[in-house]
Amino acid sequence: MRVSHLIGPELRVVLQENPGSLASLLEELHPEDIADVIAGLRADDAAKVLAGIAPEDAALIFERLEDDTQGAIAERMGPESVAHIAAEMAPDDRIELLDGLNEEMSTAVRERLRNVDPEAAQEVAELDRWPAHSAGRLMTTEYVAVGPSASVQDAILAVREAVEAETVHYVYVLAPNEQPLGVISLRDLVVADPALPVSRILRQNIISVPPTMDQEDVAKYMAKYDLIALPVVDASGAFLGIITVDDIIDVLTEEQTEDVQRLGAVEPLEDTYFATKFWVFIRKRGSWLLALFLGEFFTGTALRHFDGVLQAVTTLSFYVPLLVSTGGNSGGQSSSLVIRGMAVGEIKLTDWWRVLVRELGQGLVLGGFLATIGFLRVMTWGDGPRFAAVVALTLVGIVTMGCVVGSMLPLLLKRLRFDPATSSAPFIASLVDVMGIFIYFTFAKIILADVIAAAGK
Amino acid sequence: MRVSHLIGPELRVVLQENPGSLASLLEELHPEDIADVIAGLRADDAAKVLAGIAPEDAALIFERLEDDTQGAIAERMGPESVAHIAAEMAPDDRIELLDGLNEEMSTAVRERLRNVDPEAAQEVAELDRWPAHSAGRLMTTEYVAVGPSASVQDAILAVREAVEAETVHYVYVLAPNEQPLGVISLRDLVVADPALPVSRILRQNIISVPPTMDQEDVAKYMAKYDLIALPVVDASGAFLGIITVDDIIDVLTEEQTEDVQRLGAVEPLEDTYFATKFWVFIRKRGSWLLALFLGEFFTGTALRHFDGVLQAVTTLSFYVPLLVSTGGNSGGQSSSLVIRGMAVGEIKLTDWWRVLVRELGQGLVLGGFLATIGFLRVMTWGDGPRFAAVVALTLVGIVTMGCVVGSMLPLLLKRLRFDPATSSAPFIASLVDVMGIFIYFTFAKIILADVIAAAGK
Repeated sequence: MRVSHLIGPELRVVLQENPGSLASLLEELHPEDIADVIAGLRADDAAKVLAGIAPEDAALIFERLEDDTQGAIAERMGPESVAHIAAEMAPDDRIELLDGLNEEMSTAVRERLRNVDPEAAQEVAELDRWPAHSAGRLMTTEYVAVGPSASVQDAILAVREAVEAETVHYVYVLAPNEQPLGVISLRDLVVADPALPVSRILRQNIISVPPTMDQEDVAKYMAKYDLIALPVVDASGAFLGIITVDDIIDVLTEEQTEDVQRLGAVEPLEDTYFATKFWVFIRKRGSWLLALFLGEFFTGTALRHFDGVLQAVTTLSFYVPLLVSTGGNSGGQSSSLVIRGMAVGEIKLTDWWRVLVRELGQGLVLGGFLATIGFLRVMTWGDGPRFAAVVALTLVGIVTMGCVVGSMLPLLLKRLRFDPATSSAPFIASLVDVMGIFIYFTFAKIILADVIAAAGK
Repeated sequence: MRVSHLIGPELRVVLQENPGSLASLLEELHPEDIADVIAGLRADDAAKVLAGIAPEDAALIFERLEDDTQGAIAERMGPESVAHIAAEMAPDDRIELLDGLNEEMSTAVRERLRNVDPEAAQEVAELDRWPAHSAGRLMTTEYVAVGPSASVQDAILAVREAVEAETVHYVYVLAPNEQPLGVISLRDLVVADPALPVSRILRQNIISVPPTMDQEDVAKYMAKYDLIALPVVDASGAFLGIITVDDIIDVLTEEQTEDVQRLGAVEPLEDTYFATKFWVFIRKRGSWLLALFLGEFFTGTALRHFDGVLQAVTTLSFYVPLLVSTGGNSGGQSSSLVIRGMAVGEIKLTDWWRVLVRELGQGLVLGGFLATIGFLRVMTWGDGPRFAAVVALTLVGIVTMGCVVGSMLPLLLKRLRFDPATSSAPFIASLVDVMGIFIYFTFAKIILADVIAAAGK
């Protein structure tokens, strides 16, 4: 049960009337729950509430708000106040805030931050070096580290002094040149004799990632090795920072949303549904709708090619949407299976032959299954056994073709270094539809040759 | 870089020739990397290797293998050996293994487990009480807890003694009736004075979930509150166990795969692509293909309804796939945006009106945009300005209708307590296609009335 549902309305009134009361609430409620309530206030009121508490408390709440809410509140508070709050955030949350603000505000906050907290500004500059969606952008530079000659007691003191690092799960042992020598879990630290040197209890096999690694790959890595924090180490072997598991969960959710949107033929949105502006939607949807629309022009060309046959047997046109969409559906199934298989690393380019064999077999069986039902339906519509045969054979052909095209095109696109998730849909849709029309009319021309010839006279 | 890629081939040879060498490798390599190599062996060899090491070492590797690999190796090792390995696993991994084995093997292992390790068998029975994909199934009953009168030193001892719990991040303080009183992070434990009572350093606001909560909701909860471990508490308030963040990452990945498959109109697979058997594919794909196929029959009925118009102006049939698929594409965009918005909790049923207004606006603009391009294309095909007007008006109508149906149907299905992700696709596809045909021919009948009448004579 979310607290905000229970006490949200009352809390909102309290906060509006007495913004200062938030400080005491923070001791009793999870900042996440308070953030929920703040997000429900008008931006003016939210700004007043956050301005009424200490920046370090405001930071706890501010970092949990959505990009667009942060932006709206920042406009009301002004860059100076936002810089004070940003100074109190962890480096990874701070850069996320700056990335989410509009350019003008982001620049203004960065400028003020240089006066408010030069160290924080320096951390921003360091993370800024790395590309968007990379490990370097995701990491925090607040971690606990000791030298190789430290004792367990020294490590415990280091944890105690790390008041800024909000979560500590490991202590890293770094050489003087910043190279990681090993890692100690807090559990090992708790149970070890304080007098021991850390070199006696550290684990040497450190799993790390380079700062340029894509965040999606970082997520896979952490998932694979069940890590709570993952060190980022640069090309020279120097320790740069750590990525914590809570950021990875956010990455997974974000990437999942993007995948779903891409599969629905929408260019991934940067904001949530309601926070996305009208013209952004038009752009993100319009580009894909247009690509698919242009691709589908070829179905018109294909049908024109069979104009004579269509004129002779108008009944043929009744089945076009049914057959074409069935091909598209089987193609869509195969492509989503293969794209997901590639995304989780199961299907590799070299597996194309194994995939082809499977899809060919499935296509024939599924096509045969639908052909049986299709045959019966055509008979009950009274279009006769020969027409039913055309539809049935087309179904076998079209479903098999759909499976083959739907499974092979993503692999081909990947081979050509395109992202299969973003580029498959329009190709598959138009290719399967046009090929489906050819299969249909070819069977019709063969089986109904005499009918077509008779009508042509 | 995955170690298994570098040393996989050599390691495989070493393991095949000398299965006993695995024990020493375990000290140097991450079990995940060894599991990668084992997964690449034939099941016979893998069984030999695992049989050659101590069950507690084998458990570390076995729990990291895929369901089907576990199954194949279990067949070779026999239920007795598997029971010894299962006894060494964490309760959550153990139940996952038993759930993944075929029924016969699963029953056999459960039986042997009762002799091998009655306590482990008891834990299995406890987790078995909860439904699949619930918090109760996901939790481990190995956690560290102390009583309310314990000192910090007692808590540290409890951590030291918890050799079985593979990862410890929190110590829970439980009342004699098992009700949780608070939680202490290892960090707080490290820095606290050992003589203090735990009651002085515990945090009281424990966020917990009931054992019946769906694993997807558990994942959302952990993500929201940035937790590393989440307690499971039953209806009477008693502490049952904890869910750790690594299991949640697996849940997120699993749910993401299911979502992608559902959006591709495939019933979610239980295994990976290559591990799924032929007839399972046919069943999982066939049911959806059939549902979509039966839905599309209505396009045939709709077209038959306009038989006279089609006979009079055959050119109309050239545009059917183009127009119908464009409606389907816009509907697919809207439904994936709304389904994802509901999944992440942004769009609620009560928001239907806001969604409708947005989709209506977007549909009109997107439809108008495609109508302009469609108009020009019809003109270049030489079908004349009146025909171009029919196509353009249809595009506005069909895209707007697609947006409205695609966004409203998932909300309606949710209202009727169906899962929108699983049930939307066939409804939307056939409804949009059939309505598209009606829109198209209605415009044609009005604008081309004289042409149709002339041809009918």
